[in-house]
Amino acid sequence: MIKLTARILGLEAEKPVVLLNKEDAEDIDVRPLDRVELVLGRRKGTAIVNTAAHFVKPGEAGLYGEIADHMRAINGDVIQVFPASPPESLIHIREKLAGKRLNEKEIRMIVEDTVHRKLSDIEMTAFVTALYKDGVTSAEVVALSKAMALTGKSLNLGKKEIYDKHSIGGVPGDKTSMLLVPIVGAAGLTIPKTSSRAITSPAGTADRFECLAPVDLELEEIKRIVNKINCCLVWGGAVDLAPADDLFIQIEYPLSIDPLLLPSVMSMKKAVGAKYLVIDIPTGDEAKVKTTKEAETLAERFIDLGKKLGIKTVGASTFGEQPIGRAIGPALEAREALEILMTGKGPEDTIDKVTHIAGILMDFKMKKGGKREALRIINSGKAYDKLKQLIDEQGGNPHAKPDDLNIGPESVRIKSSIRGTVSWIDNHSIVEISRAAGTPKDKGAGMLLHKKMGDRVRKGDTLFEIFANKKYKLERALKIANSIHVMGVGKKMDMLLEKIPRKVEHPKYFILER
Amino acid sequence: MIKLTARILGLEAEKPVVLLNKEDAEDIDVRPLDRVELVLGRRKGTAIVNTAAHFVKPGEAGLYGEIADHMRAINGDVIQVFPASPPESLIHIREKLAGKRLNEKEIRMIVEDTVHRKLSDIEMTAFVTALYKDGVTSAEVVALSKAMALTGKSLNLGKKEIYDKHSIGGVPGDKTSMLLVPIVGAAGLTIPKTSSRAITSPAGTADRFECLAPVDLELEEIKRIVNKINCCLVWGGAVDLAPADDLFIQIEYPLSIDPLLLPSVMSMKKAVGAKYLVIDIPTGDEAKVKTTKEAETLAERFIDLGKKLGIKTVGASTFGEQPIGRAIGPALEAREALEILMTGKGPEDTIDKVTHIAGILMDFKMKKGGKREALRIINSGKAYDKLKQLIDEQGGNPHAKPDDLNIGPESVRIKSSIRGTVSWIDNHSIVEISRAAGTPKDKGAGMLLHKKMGDRVRKGDTLFEIFANKKYKLERALKIANSIHVMGVGKKMDMLLEKIPRKVEHPKYFILER
Repeated sequence: MIKLTARILGLEAEKPVVLLNKEDAEDIDVRPLDRVELVLGRRKGTAIVNTAAHFVKPGEAGLYGEIADHMRAINGDVIQVFPASPPESLIHIREKLAGKRLNEKEIRMIVEDTVHRKLSDIEMTAFVTALYKDGVTSAEVVALSKAMALTGKSLNLGKKEIYDKHSIGGVPGDKTSMLLVPIVGAAGLTIPKTSSRAITSPAGTADRFECLAPVDLELEEIKRIVNKINCCLVWGGAVDLAPADDLFIQIEYPLSIDPLLLPSVMSMKKAVGAKYLVIDIPTGDEAKVKTTKEAETLAERFIDLGKKLGIKTVGASTFGEQPIGRAIGPALEAREALEILMTGKGPEDTIDKVTHIAGILMDFKMKKGGKREALRIINSGKAYDKLKQLIDEQGGNPHAKPDDLNIGPESVRIKSSIRGTVSWIDNHSIVEISRAAGTPKDKGAGMLLHKKMGDRVRKGDTLFEIFANKKYKLERALKIANSIHVMGVGKKMDMLLEKIPRKVEHPKYFILER
Repeated sequence: MIKLTARILGLEAEKPVVLLNKEDAEDIDVRPLDRVELVLGRRKGTAIVNTAAHFVKPGEAGLYGEIADHMRAINGDVIQVFPASPPESLIHIREKLAGKRLNEKEIRMIVEDTVHRKLSDIEMTAFVTALYKDGVTSAEVVALSKAMALTGKSLNLGKKEIYDKHSIGGVPGDKTSMLLVPIVGAAGLTIPKTSSRAITSPAGTADRFECLAPVDLELEEIKRIVNKINCCLVWGGAVDLAPADDLFIQIEYPLSIDPLLLPSVMSMKKAVGAKYLVIDIPTGDEAKVKTTKEAETLAERFIDLGKKLGIKTVGASTFGEQPIGRAIGPALEAREALEILMTGKGPEDTIDKVTHIAGILMDFKMKKGGKREALRIINSGKAYDKLKQLIDEQGGNPHAKPDDLNIGPESVRIKSSIRGTVSWIDNHSIVEISRAAGTPKDKGAGMLLHKKMGDRVRKGDTLFEIFANKKYKLERALKIANSIHVMGVGKKMDMLLEKIPRKVEHPKYFILER
């Protein structure tokens, strides 16, 4: 044990980190990333050790924000520091490294210590990497899903039968959820939809809907709204449902691996109490899942896991070779979705997709005819009425018209120098250009595709338009648009020949959105 | 690109880290652990991004020490910040995660970026974990060894034939190297011995020899000494030979995995230009390697790798069930070694071990009779003469006598409450008690074993003695000594019965010393 004087560093570590001088650390025989137990009066806490040769002087304990708050320490407090054993979860991480299949209790410990920030980046990375290398067994996926749900809050809506929808993502412009929730809600099904913000894509559902109404709602507020109007459309990150997910994503993202995809999705569904679920799997060379065979395998894993968690699950492999609809970017997509629900008119692919997916959910109840019913709900204006309710309850302006959405004032049209037919659209390029233009941060930024696959193009026709809030961002996006192939225009039969040169590597655009 | 005002944080990251406000990071579309390119006047640098919500304000770039130095930035400098691609090595780490066998060039990139601190902890951990999970191929081990040697300095001694020795460690009190170097040096062989400091053990060879002479020598000084007297005994960490090793150990240590053992050892041997090498593999239930079969397998891997690196290698499996000699702790061990070389007398196991290992090295030249010659060199006083030269050249006092060594003034003797024979000694407990007593930091701390395996014990005989510099450390060590079984004393045949209850788990004492 050693007595040290507290020094509040004013630094955020998001973990309980204490910075010790190297001398002091040696004195109590701890090394960086070992744990120490801190005692200050009657308060105790465990912290992860970092060491410094100069920044913290001998006799000082440098406290990062989280542990300082936990200990209620102020500068000058005398803190007792004891070497502590590593958390038991670390023993199980080491077992996982050694190839052991972990049981429910062991996985629960690891997820709990992840959520409580008791594990270092090295330890969490070893766990995630080992899961990736060994593959996760069906029992482990179940245990992870449960643990990730149980270590967060849950949305308890009593006896209601909860419906839910999830897309594994990977296709830009996919405003399906924003259309589906009002449709399904109008059909009388309960759908408390939590959604994500964009990580690597131009827009997440939360980013889109935020153009019409706030999405950072508290759990109690969500309950009230769903009890009143059947549905909501909120940002999952605001409600602390399955919080382990975000922490695992921070490890997976730089490594471009995704071993926790299934538990990540299903823990959230478990936390909202879903009974019926449709998983949208965009499929195609331009999507995350390349072939229908792969989509089937993935869907079966979701279905199997759903069974074990009491969630009746159906998978839907959808066409993912090009963006959904014409608009990409939060406000542009919100506008497109609003127009579809107001008029029943809009891009055919978008309407077809949402009625298919909504239909699958409605068929859980109606047995058949869901797709037709979904279309009827759009065309009758009931979906738009539900959308207005939704916007109103979440605190937005229900009378907002498409023109009220703030689209970036700076724009440029890219025109075709040849005539022909659009044979392919590069999703990765669309993402890259849109992000350069400012999405998802600048809600008005994005792209509008004037042409899509199969469309005839005359020389001089606009292929797509880029929007930005600021001129330099527009220029940045334009520079990229000029340097890469975004669309292939040619005679129908040129398609395969065109595909070869456009196989540019986009290692940055592994898309981790869930 | 964004222009930010430099703010020197006064923090050490040991990596080029720049702390951006979340807003600014979003603005240039970078996430934590992404890279940015910094430009200040004519200076450029790549940094790893961390983000903060408050600690760094919008418009500021918080610079950690390393990148601040590299950019020669001062507070208020205006720095241009561009998003940058991840280093190519990260692509190869991702390939390794995907199961690819990496080639020499790819491994070289990863090791280089490790040494230049261009990889985050998450990325390095993923690499080390993947190596551990997949196993490292023979070709990869060769490539790693070469890369780890080439990314550091090397000791070029011209045409001399270099001999070397290494122990994989794991047994406390092992002062073999400190005895072997003067013996082999006196025999006329060139042995520029680099050694390590303790990480988890009570003493490393560098810690021991430092009680007699400085070990932090520069490369040029080492050259001078070896050219003059054939040998040296220095701390490897001071000379920047194979610097990647230390960085990998920082990842391996908290995970208790060791996938880089072979390249770690052999890169250092390559860097000093070794031609002949003996690898000591302490073997036994109390050691790292449990059986002679395991020892053979490991030795064969070293031999095979040696062949590919041009180092003729012999393995030696040695008895590792109890400490070597009677002394544990830097000064106590230095004293024991000094006595052996001065008098030719001392613990039989220690003398037997060092003459065996030295003999193997000498047999590379003499073909046979090395062990006998080694013993002759001790008994003739030639080894002691060489030790005095060694101490003198490295800047110590060559006339130091055993009593000149500073042993901790606080001590306590642990006595036997029964009579019998010592049937086992628990190496882990010895380590734990010695470290609690202050080793390796307090050089005078440690233990002296009055009894070893097979020794007769009468009731009241001292079993072992604990030494410390400070009373509270002695008490801390004593508390541990009283709570765990250190030695088994019983009738000879009780041994197996005694072994069962002492199988206490010591998860903390995975011993990473190399």
